[in-house]
Amino acid sequence: MGGSSFGKAFQITTFGESHGSGIGVVIDGCPSGVNLDMEYIQQQLTRRKPGQSSITTQRKENDEVKILSGALNNVTTGAPIMMWIGNLDQRSHDYDHIKSVFRPSHADFTYYKKYGIRDHRGGGRSSARETAARVAGGSVAQHICNKVGAKITAYVSSIGTLQTTKTYQELDLSTIDDNIVRCPDQALAATMIKAVEDARDDGNTIGGCVTCVIENSPIGLGEPVFDRLEADLAKAMLSINAVKGFEVGSGFAGSTMLGNQHNDQFQIDADENISTKTNYSGGIQGGISNGMPIYFKVAFKPTSTIMKQQDSIDAEGKNTTILGKGRHDPCVVPRAVPIVEAMAALVMADHILRNQTSNIDSIT
Amino acid sequence: MGGSSFGKAFQITTFGESHGSGIGVVIDGCPSGVNLDMEYIQQQLTRRKPGQSSITTQRKENDEVKILSGALNNVTTGAPIMMWIGNLDQRSHDYDHIKSVFRPSHADFTYYKKYGIRDHRGGGRSSARETAARVAGGSVAQHICNKVGAKITAYVSSIGTLQTTKTYQELDLSTIDDNIVRCPDQALAATMIKAVEDARDDGNTIGGCVTCVIENSPIGLGEPVFDRLEADLAKAMLSINAVKGFEVGSGFAGSTMLGNQHNDQFQIDADENISTKTNYSGGIQGGISNGMPIYFKVAFKPTSTIMKQQDSIDAEGKNTTILGKGRHDPCVVPRAVPIVEAMAALVMADHILRNQTSNIDSIT
Amino acid sequence: MGGSSFGKAFQITTFGESHGSGIGVVIDGCPSGVNLDMEYIQQQLTRRKPGQSSITTQRKENDEVKILSGALNNVTTGAPIMMWIGNLDQRSHDYDHIKSVFRPSHADFTYYKKYGIRDHRGGGRSSARETAARVAGGSVAQHICNKVGAKITAYVSSIGTLQTTKTYQELDLSTIDDNIVRCPDQALAATMIKAVEDARDDGNTIGGCVTCVIENSPIGLGEPVFDRLEADLAKAMLSINAVKGFEVGSGFAGSTMLGNQHNDQFQIDADENISTKTNYSGGIQGGISNGMPIYFKVAFKPTSTIMKQQDSIDAEGKNTTILGKGRHDPCVVPRAVPIVEAMAALVMADHILRNQTSNIDSIT
Amino acid sequence: MGGSSFGKAFQITTFGESHGSGIGVVIDGCPSGVNLDMEYIQQQLTRRKPGQSSITTQRKENDEVKILSGALNNVTTGAPIMMWIGNLDQRSHDYDHIKSVFRPSHADFTYYKKYGIRDHRGGGRSSARETAARVAGGSVAQHICNKVGAKITAYVSSIGTLQTTKTYQELDLSTIDDNIVRCPDQALAATMIKAVEDARDDGNTIGGCVTCVIENSPIGLGEPVFDRLEADLAKAMLSINAVKGFEVGSGFAGSTMLGNQHNDQFQIDADENISTKTNYSGGIQGGISNGMPIYFKVAFKPTSTIMKQQDSIDAEGKNTTILGKGRHDPCVVPRAVPIVEAMAALVMADHILRNQTSNIDSIT
Repeated sequence: MGGSSFGKAFQITTFGESHGSGIGVVIDGCPSGVNLDMEYIQQQLTRRKPGQSSITTQRKENDEVKILSGALNNVTTGAPIMMWIGNLDQRSHDYDHIKSVFRPSHADFTYYKKYGIRDHRGGGRSSARETAARVAGGSVAQHICNKVGAKITAYVSSIGTLQTTKTYQELDLSTIDDNIVRCPDQALAATMIKAVEDARDDGNTIGGCVTCVIENSPIGLGEPVFDRLEADLAKAMLSINAVKGFEVGSGFAGSTMLGNQHNDQFQIDADENISTKTNYSGGIQGGISNGMPIYFKVAFKPTSTIMKQQDSIDAEGKNTTILGKGRHDPCVVPRAVPIVEAMAALVMADHILRNQTSNIDSIT
Repeated sequence: MGGSSFGKAFQITTFGESHGSGIGVVIDGCPSGVNLDMEYIQQQLTRRKPGQSSITTQRKENDEVKILSGALNNVTTGAPIMMWIGNLDQRSHDYDHIKSVFRPSHADFTYYKKYGIRDHRGGGRSSARETAARVAGGSVAQHICNKVGAKITAYVSSIGTLQTTKTYQELDLSTIDDNIVRCPDQALAATMIKAVEDARDDGNTIGGCVTCVIENSPIGLGEPVFDRLEADLAKAMLSINAVKGFEVGSGFAGSTMLGNQHNDQFQIDADENISTKTNYSGGIQGGISNGMPIYFKVAFKPTSTIMKQQDSIDAEGKNTTILGKGRHDPCVVPRAVPIVEAMAALVMADHILRNQTSNIDSIT
Repeated sequence: MGGSSFGKAFQITTFGESHGSGIGVVIDGCPSGVNLDMEYIQQQLTRRKPGQSSITTQRKENDEVKILSGALNNVTTGAPIMMWIGNLDQRSHDYDHIKSVFRPSHADFTYYKKYGIRDHRGGGRSSARETAARVAGGSVAQHICNKVGAKITAYVSSIGTLQTTKTYQELDLSTIDDNIVRCPDQALAATMIKAVEDARDDGNTIGGCVTCVIENSPIGLGEPVFDRLEADLAKAMLSINAVKGFEVGSGFAGSTMLGNQHNDQFQIDADENISTKTNYSGGIQGGISNGMPIYFKVAFKPTSTIMKQQDSIDAEGKNTTILGKGRHDPCVVPRAVPIVEAMAALVMADHILRNQTSNIDSIT
Repeated sequence: MGGSSFGKAFQITTFGESHGSGIGVVIDGCPSGVNLDMEYIQQQLTRRKPGQSSITTQRKENDEVKILSGALNNVTTGAPIMMWIGNLDQRSHDYDHIKSVFRPSHADFTYYKKYGIRDHRGGGRSSARETAARVAGGSVAQHICNKVGAKITAYVSSIGTLQTTKTYQELDLSTIDDNIVRCPDQALAATMIKAVEDARDDGNTIGGCVTCVIENSPIGLGEPVFDRLEADLAKAMLSINAVKGFEVGSGFAGSTMLGNQHNDQFQIDADENISTKTNYSGGIQGGISNGMPIYFKVAFKPTSTIMKQQDSIDAEGKNTTILGKGRHDPCVVPRAVPIVEAMAALVMADHILRNQTSNIDSIT
């Protein structure tokens, strides 16, 4: 029983390997009549693609997306949408040196043990390249979010130990792409970039965090008790390569608080707008969105491919060493920004569709 | 499209409200021939039930579980297993004072907005009582884990700002239930209990964290790219009431590290046992278990029912205040230990079953 | 991976055995705000229950249904609905004589081989008693159909070789329950009843067919290419015990026709109502309802329990004979009428909910 | 919520339109290590492709299949398998005459009403071309069946009113492809071919039936109570374009029989092989395979595109007429043989995988 699909009402299935002919995604359940903004979709892929700046891998990919089914003149028809991203750069000889060695903290060992087959060419299916297909699918999902006015924005909030002290409200989220590390705390961004460059120059890698905010979410999204909105967001984020943690609203800090500090008291203003005075809940209560901004944070470990000698074992079970070669990505976090947005959009679109049938009054 | 089911191969569906006649769970996909240890199952429920100690709610429930289908002489038959836990204490008059007020940080407001109906009696479906059904289902799942030797252990690792500095390896996990706060750091446990008592006596609540360790997991569990083992664990944990965060292996701290620090180098010993020198991966690489211990941490916010006056609004949209009455649970974290174990067991059982068909060689 | 659930948006899960304490169903995904007509629900169960007439089994069951969750004052809350039907008549000693013999054409042999366990008490899970839970769930689904005006009516169209020559349009469907065999061809009904009595008196059983008509279906139900409306109806019907065949619209007879005979030509009348001149399509084209009446026919074999000596084998693999004892049902077809209606309602409700998200214009 | 996926453990998702760049299928859940017989896969597609004989449509397609992911040197890796069949012949101008008219008994009207969009080019998604993707997926599923020895064979058993009187046991199933109508009753085949030619020459179409036999099925396939083996086969078959009926074992004829005629009595021979003396059950009892041959019959209506003038309406709701142009397929039944085999293989593979976890003893 495979695990290549995500979502129930708005469902994507991804396929393809990093060094085959390409990768892709099939979207099933997208409503008809969606006017696809191809420029936006391509832009999100471009924000994810390797080689986009001096602090990402220099592997070259155009990541040009084509829609091969499910749309007529860029309007969705209700049929499954297949999006294809051809692979340009298939230099699999870069990987010959690891043909018989398991790279530390990569998926080599576990894939080999589970499937009995070693597709060493760039990690095959476990490569971060697969996330391009998610970005493609997520950028279509974004159109569903747009229909109800929900706005999803992610940015880098920490690189290594460098963490912005500002909340998302204190930051100008329109400036995220003004620097290559995608941190809207412009004062901190330069230092972050330097940290990534240092890691890169040392043949090393560095981790970091992405924060995501969803403004103007409809009230009522989330299906208790298991498909709570935050549960599906958590799964979405932990399904991304290199993610080690997720927190929503007050998160881990919330666990150190007392109830009277943490409770979000309701208020209503003269215009009858209901809000909460604080938002430790992160816009979700009882698993369902309450209309306040949803925000969460995702932790990325430093990626595993480093240009340093490490101990390992080979397929014959002998101790050996491995030394990275070729191109490596010193920090995946800036490129993870559109991936986080895409996965969030997929969760939101799925729950927007699911919520259409919550009450009998709206059934026609 | 409801959200009351969890798992794909080993699937549970829970039902029931806190103040109806009872709650229950249906398990579909449990293999036949499982000899159910009824004493263990009841014991897990007893570890979760309210009123078990001076630092939990004094609401009285026996939480006695009955198996009403799917087993013959306590051996599973392959048919769906229905487990029923009758409600004993249905004092819904305790809730009359909140009939028309939305309790801050509860699910009252969002349920009302989503479903158009207010079942004010104890939170109805959103009550933590629902988790008893999960513990019932999870304790059956535990039998599948036992078949392959996997051992799941959870404990309280922090209460408020009081956090054990010891790793799970440094703690004696056999002593978890030796104190009522379920922290195996015995030196810290008394202080933690005091912190909960202080919150209780002040009509307040306090948060905390649960750490969970899965030892001796088979290699190969997890289905990339979306049903990665850590993604399903994250969803499982975030689906529990009051949870605000999840981290696996190095977690958020991992995001502050460099690649050469974080990578888990492989080694093989004289007996041909493969292991990693460190375990920042938390036993999962590329979404698949690698045989090392799986460990993760779950953050619980302080629960929302407090005995203090708070601002709120009523169903008519007027500003008002609310003052808690009746029984309240000053700290849900000790009772969450068996819930975390149950949800972890459900994920593991699901993936153990799913992994049976990974390779054509084992198909008969 | 169990098979106890049916439906995707409106989903039921049934559980329970014929000789345990009872059987039940959990409905997940039912919209909130549905005002349940408890009298109708009980009536459908009563139409299915054994002992209702001289031509059904004399096994006594009240089949009294209770709603144990998901409704408040008989209005659905959006939470999972659990319905319970206690078993009254658990005379399992009736089955002692078959403890070690596999009854011909029953599920004894296959359940034993699949699950390794023999629950001989009345067939356990494979008993037709399980269908009571479907009728309970289906009668809730019927409320969703009512919301959009769809009307589902089933009746007996043949018993053995006695088959009505009238189409559903030529019959007065309000008279179905005027006779105990539930055939609205009143002239034929008496002969049918006699045929069942003859089989009964001979310790034998007899088969027959149920025809079902769905009038006033909304246009647009069905999700190509696999969840076509007729495909889901076929699955629903073939999942009922003793069903051997399904045909929709022209059915098997349609396979003998030419295209120019079979095509349903469109027409529009002065009031702009679109219809087809004929309806060989059975109200479904391309897997989607077209607004014309949906009709289909379901074939039931004679049930397997007969009061005659038959050859068989025992659990030790020896040839033996078996002679039926106790009560038997000479003809299940009249009791199958509400079961067919229930399964049809489940399919329709599921597709009504799924169709809410077909077009982006209606997403809010 | 889309309907483009089929199967739970071995799951396919198809995509693509008849007049886009191509069609395809993603298989998720296929075990690793399957050595794909590319020649067999292509052969099954060639048996389905148009233009293969004088009695099928003359539309030209190579139907050449490429595997674009999930296999390394034609061995499955456990990753999702994407198979692509490019469209060669995209003469959409053939369809301009129907741009604004709904073709009788086609999917034009219902797709338009459901999705609000008219993709008139050859039926778009509702075209029979989509079944090529099923044949691709099904031919991979066939490899799972091969692993357990199950053999699936379909053939044409009737064309119009011409029906073979021989059972599958009386026919030489190795001769199915010896004639272009794929009927192993060689004496009847020539007459059948003549009947199709007559329809073709008259600009008409003709229906027929396909019979399918599954020999040597493992005992134990099927998941009661809803995912019974015959229920999933019924859904699979009714999901094929133009199918109006399905019967398994005794089928509709079984509904005319008495219990003592219909029951399949067990016997055991000297070699301890268990069998039934008759096989009216069609190899399935209680929803689970019993080891006897599984056989079923599928009814296909005459296809809707005819070269004759018919009444219809246009998109503006005016009465009009339509006259078919271009190529048409006088009889789809011979080409349906590999489609029926493919859908049967998908059901069997799914249930073979699901059955691996039926009993705890085999869980490792």
